[in-house]
Amino acid sequence: MDYIFKSNERSSKILDFHHPHQLKEGLEGFSLDLPDHPEPLEQILVDCRDTLKYGVKTGHPRFFNQLSSGLDLVGLAGQWLTSTANTNMFTYEVSPVFLLMEEVLLKKMQSIVGWCEEEGDGIFCPGGAVSNLYSLLVARYDFYPEVKTKGMCALPRLALFTSEHSHYSVRKAAAVLGMGSDSVQVVPCDERYPSPEGLFGLVPFYVNATAGTTVYGAFDPLTAIADVCDRHKLWLHVDAAWGGGLLMSRRHQGKLQGIERASSVTWNPHKLMGAPLQCSAILIKKRVTECMLRQCNQLCAEYLFQSDKHYDISYDTGDKTIQCGRHVDVFKLWLMWKAKGSEGFGSQVNKCLENAEYLFKQLQRRADFKLVFESKPEHSNVCFWYLPPSLRGLPPGPDTNRRLHEVAPQIKAKMMEEGTTLIGYQPLGSNVNFFRCVFSNPATQHEDVDFLLEEIARLGSNL
Amino acid sequence: MDYIFKSNERSSKILDFHHPHQLKEGLEGFSLDLPDHPEPLEQILVDCRDTLKYGVKTGHPRFFNQLSSGLDLVGLAGQWLTSTANTNMFTYEVSPVFLLMEEVLLKKMQSIVGWCEEEGDGIFCPGGAVSNLYSLLVARYDFYPEVKTKGMCALPRLALFTSEHSHYSVRKAAAVLGMGSDSVQVVPCDERYPSPEGLFGLVPFYVNATAGTTVYGAFDPLTAIADVCDRHKLWLHVDAAWGGGLLMSRRHQGKLQGIERASSVTWNPHKLMGAPLQCSAILIKKRVTECMLRQCNQLCAEYLFQSDKHYDISYDTGDKTIQCGRHVDVFKLWLMWKAKGSEGFGSQVNKCLENAEYLFKQLQRRADFKLVFESKPEHSNVCFWYLPPSLRGLPPGPDTNRRLHEVAPQIKAKMMEEGTTLIGYQPLGSNVNFFRCVFSNPATQHEDVDFLLEEIARLGSNL
Ligand SMILES: Cc1ncc(COP(=O)(O)O)c(C=O)c1O
Ligand SMILES: Cc1ncc(COP(=O)(O)O)c(C=O)c1O
Repeated sequence: MDYIFKSNERSSKILDFHHPHQLKEGLEGFSLDLPDHPEPLEQILVDCRDTLKYGVKTGHPRFFNQLSSGLDLVGLAGQWLTSTANTNMFTYEVSPVFLLMEEVLLKKMQSIVGWCEEEGDGIFCPGGAVSNLYSLLVARYDFYPEVKTKGMCALPRLALFTSEHSHYSVRKAAAVLGMGSDSVQVVPCDERYPSPEGLFGLVPFYVNATAGTTVYGAFDPLTAIADVCDRHKLWLHVDAAWGGGLLMSRRHQGKLQGIERASSVTWNPHKLMGAPLQCSAILIKKRVTECMLRQCNQLCAEYLFQSDKHYDISYDTGDKTIQCGRHVDVFKLWLMWKAKGSEGFGSQVNKCLENAEYLFKQLQRRADFKLVFESKPEHSNVCFWYLPPSLRGLPPGPDTNRRLHEVAPQIKAKMMEEGTTLIGYQPLGSNVNFFRCVFSNPATQHEDVDFLLEEIARLGSNL
Repeated sequence: MDYIFKSNERSSKILDFHHPHQLKEGLEGFSLDLPDHPEPLEQILVDCRDTLKYGVKTGHPRFFNQLSSGLDLVGLAGQWLTSTANTNMFTYEVSPVFLLMEEVLLKKMQSIVGWCEEEGDGIFCPGGAVSNLYSLLVARYDFYPEVKTKGMCALPRLALFTSEHSHYSVRKAAAVLGMGSDSVQVVPCDERYPSPEGLFGLVPFYVNATAGTTVYGAFDPLTAIADVCDRHKLWLHVDAAWGGGLLMSRRHQGKLQGIERASSVTWNPHKLMGAPLQCSAILIKKRVTECMLRQCNQLCAEYLFQSDKHYDISYDTGDKTIQCGRHVDVFKLWLMWKAKGSEGFGSQVNKCLENAEYLFKQLQRRADFKLVFESKPEHSNVCFWYLPPSLRGLPPGPDTNRRLHEVAPQIKAKMMEEGTTLIGYQPLGSNVNFFRCVFSNPATQHEDVDFLLEEIARLGSNL
């Protein structure tokens, strides 16, 4: 507890950077080597302290580097209890309470998405990338159930659509599932989803729309895309891994209008809702009463899923998954929900978006920064360039761009050495390296936003 | 802490069973419903207490139900610290220490398997089923790299071999990857691995051998299988999810002879080695210097894996995975290793197998039980029937078998209601429902083994 409060104080460093070779060589008695004989307890405690010391404080209010940040104390208590219970989610036999909590959470999330009670199915997964993989897996099975036994060879060549700025896990899933990444048709973001007729020899079946893109925080037009999907009978998946949290806020939920028409939804409470890692759900709409997820994945291994048990075995949900053992990711979220209520999540989300607006306004005002988009952010992502003195006032063009491209990595390198704040950068399309600030830690205040800009300006002042 | 010690005392119940509808209706103020408004802190504490109360004590010395059991206190401390650090394994930037620990652990495990230093590659996965999926994914890519972009349609029809008693996750992986479960050729366990020539029109490429089968704890003859694989140039995967732990014991490691010839190995420290859930590694042998895992999976998303970082980006291992975010599963194992040393794991494993031998000997002696196998167990699995008074001395035959089949489920149902001990059962092949006892908790003593048999006899005495 003491550690948690201290390390997340503003005056503490976020990281004490060392290069891999430095850490590997061993620092002041901190050796990574694995011994043959036991080490004394005092050494174990020192090892723990050093592990935290050389790690990154993702709960620090000035950590802006990832979509997951913050350290919710109730969520943390939930994790600790989960670890203490140390059980597996495959059967009701060994996880009665956690499996029911999963059901309650999935139903709640489905009702928030706008599905009616009977429609919902789903499962918690080890991350949003795996949730997206499930959606593609179940969609494929829905169109071609023979794929489970006969494989892709028995199917026509499939095509799926996703927008330019969607998460790379959709392409990865296509590769893993044996469809091949070439089956993914990338739709440029300024076009509407095109009609699928243009694809010679390929059979389109699936569209991934993103609600809250990873870098820009943009929302694909869900209603328009749902119309296209209806017309062509395509499976609509909405990747709301990052944007799903907005559904908790009355003020912002309208940005996901149309999500209720999706056949599947990815929603990561471990991002905007601040649940500790990992916590991600795939929600799947049932057709009539069929549980696609179960049919798609079940193999009925008798050593786990005996049919002659004395309780209602529909709660043995392990056979719906592509895993066998499955970590308990639900309890922390359930406990946070009890402690905050839906409205508590709502205000937390509002706070994050309010911080983004504050940053946006500060950037509008300053001449040493330039926004990537002039319009108000839709989510908590704010993208911008820092213009060091030497680049200010230069005419736009390839040469300026080439130089601007090198600014963010240089500042980031210095930032990691100093460890006072942390923010990510990347190029995207024709935009050279720019910073992406994201807010998901409700502990972050305006002063932290101010600090971030001052720190970037300080570190970049001589570039 | 208090909870941990109390709940794992022998006098405590392992579970306080309630049917799903009972728990859902709410028990003495324990409601699963998610509120709109926050609940008071006292209620949250009561919720935590009740969650533990109605859960299953997997750390109890009389819990024999799953391959994962026990509650290692150092491992638990490791989990708690991991939760406190709350970070993601994708990049060195946010997980410097944990990524290096992963490397150290993988190298150590590879050297124990018998690979030389440069050969090793691998990753920690969310469970053994996913580890097995990785092996099939990388093997496919190794033979047909075009699968990543072009999918299964560009490949001949593949076949893979696995033994009858192998884990169902191999078939599941074949279905997920788009090969189809029909591509899995099941080899009966009393045959040697057959030569692959018999498969018309299919191209064999992969053999899964199991080191420690899930139910019987048997070891496939690895050297003989490796010879077949060499002859036919097949990828040899060894699923040592359950048996890998034996490598830690000088007394038992010989049972895995030949594992060094595998191209990939699944090894779950969360089973026999007692690491808290989840902790599973897939080890992959490099060809020359190529990192198959990275080539197979990487997509180089620029927002995470920028190539212009200031540190050695080979440590940004996230792109080797099929996940994006990845939970830190390594720290608890690393910490346990420090606290026990390799030799500590060795004696723990010996203890588990010694308990199995003790149970085996008790069963040999008793007339009210019957062993499934007369030979000494190879692993810590012991399989047996209980013969209630009404079945003793009956001639073997379909009628006796039909009645015997109903014994284990009835005893198990009573056992769950009473909550004094927990053991699993299943049918397998021509063997009707039998109990499978497995030992992975070093806290289990002979008295617990005695208790188990007495309890089964007591619960089954009037059947
Ligand atoms: C839009 C989107 N989808 C999916 C993911 C993957 O989520 P995870 O890291 O939990 O696998 C991300 C991660 O950033 C994301 O931004
Ligand atoms: C032989 C074998 N392989 C793989 C697995 C799957 O492991 P996990 O439950 O970690 O996914 C098991 C689980 O019991 C197993 O016994």
